[in-house]
Amino acid sequence: MNFRFEEAIQLLARTPASLEAFLSGLPEGWIHCNEGEGTWNAEEVIAHLIEAEISNWIPRIETLLQYGEDQTFPPFDRFAHLETTADTTIERKLAAFRKIRMANLEKLKELVNPEKDLDLRGIHPEFGSVTLSELLSTWVVHDLTHISQITRVMAERYREDVGPWEQYLSVLKARK
Amino acid sequence: MNFRFEEAIQLLARTPASLEAFLSGLPEGWIHCNEGEGTWNAEEVIAHLIEAEISNWIPRIETLLQYGEDQTFPPFDRFAHLETTADTTIERKLAAFRKIRMANLEKLKELVNPEKDLDLRGIHPEFGSVTLSELLSTWVVHDLTHISQITRVMAERYREDVGPWEQYLSVLKARK
Repeated sequence: MNFRFEEAIQLLARTPASLEAFLSGLPEGWIHCNEGEGTWNAEEVIAHLIEAEISNWIPRIETLLQYGEDQTFPPFDRFAHLETTADTTIERKLAAFRKIRMANLEKLKELVNPEKDLDLRGIHPEFGSVTLSELLSTWVVHDLTHISQITRVMAERYREDVGPWEQYLSVLKARK
Repeated sequence: MNFRFEEAIQLLARTPASLEAFLSGLPEGWIHCNEGEGTWNAEEVIAHLIEAEISNWIPRIETLLQYGEDQTFPPFDRFAHLETTADTTIERKLAAFRKIRMANLEKLKELVNPEKDLDLRGIHPEFGSVTLSELLSTWVVHDLTHISQITRVMAERYREDVGPWEQYLSVLKARK
């Protein structure tokens, strides 16, 4: 296992500022491009990250710590954010993401004792029994997945424009 | 064509700060993990981005503007940085990348008149005739490719640790 509680937190703490530095103030064309119908643009990805902070990670950690394998994690609707995305700017969403992420990391440090809790188990509604360290590792890789998704969505916009270089740009070969 | 000169510059200008916010101060484990022998860690990717700022983009743009199709672009060694990576920290590399990127964007704005230069052509050593807008689009997608690579390399470290979630995390399915 490579997972380390402190190292995971250090990465999770950096995602909001990194995305803010990358996306804040960028023109429409970059923020609202997507990979075709039914795919997400960068702003929708940020809204999804916020939704996961609200409804996924901490509620699941709390359920696991409180009920163990006696209660299934609360469900998480991966598309819930699509109903609430339209009414703010991406800059506001980025600020909201940073705020809730930082609060959640404080909560995480209060909730979890990494010396003894990481092997505790809970019940995922689909996979069944999972450990706390699997859930926490997933939180980290979920960030990495969505940063990667944002770069892939934005690269798609220039797929034709790069001409013969397309074959050398691996982001244009990434799977959706 | 989706390429817009100003929008491309706005994205290129954000990459260094975004990578600094993400990578600066992260522990060893994140900075030096890779995808196995012969693959790059995050620090090596930053070194490659610096090398491309020095030897690739601006020299090629200058060759294209000065000689058109009469002279092939100077070669770019995509592995040159591997010989010079060991002797500084990632924080120094990130600062060096920011400095040279910002200087190069100033140079770009002096060199190129987007009203009339974008269709000018030069000769790529492998592909033959390419346009300036293809070269500039590639600069942008090259950034996106390497941000994506960094997330993929770091996600690999937790591939086993996420347990059954692996199937839902698209960054773990991305092609190298």
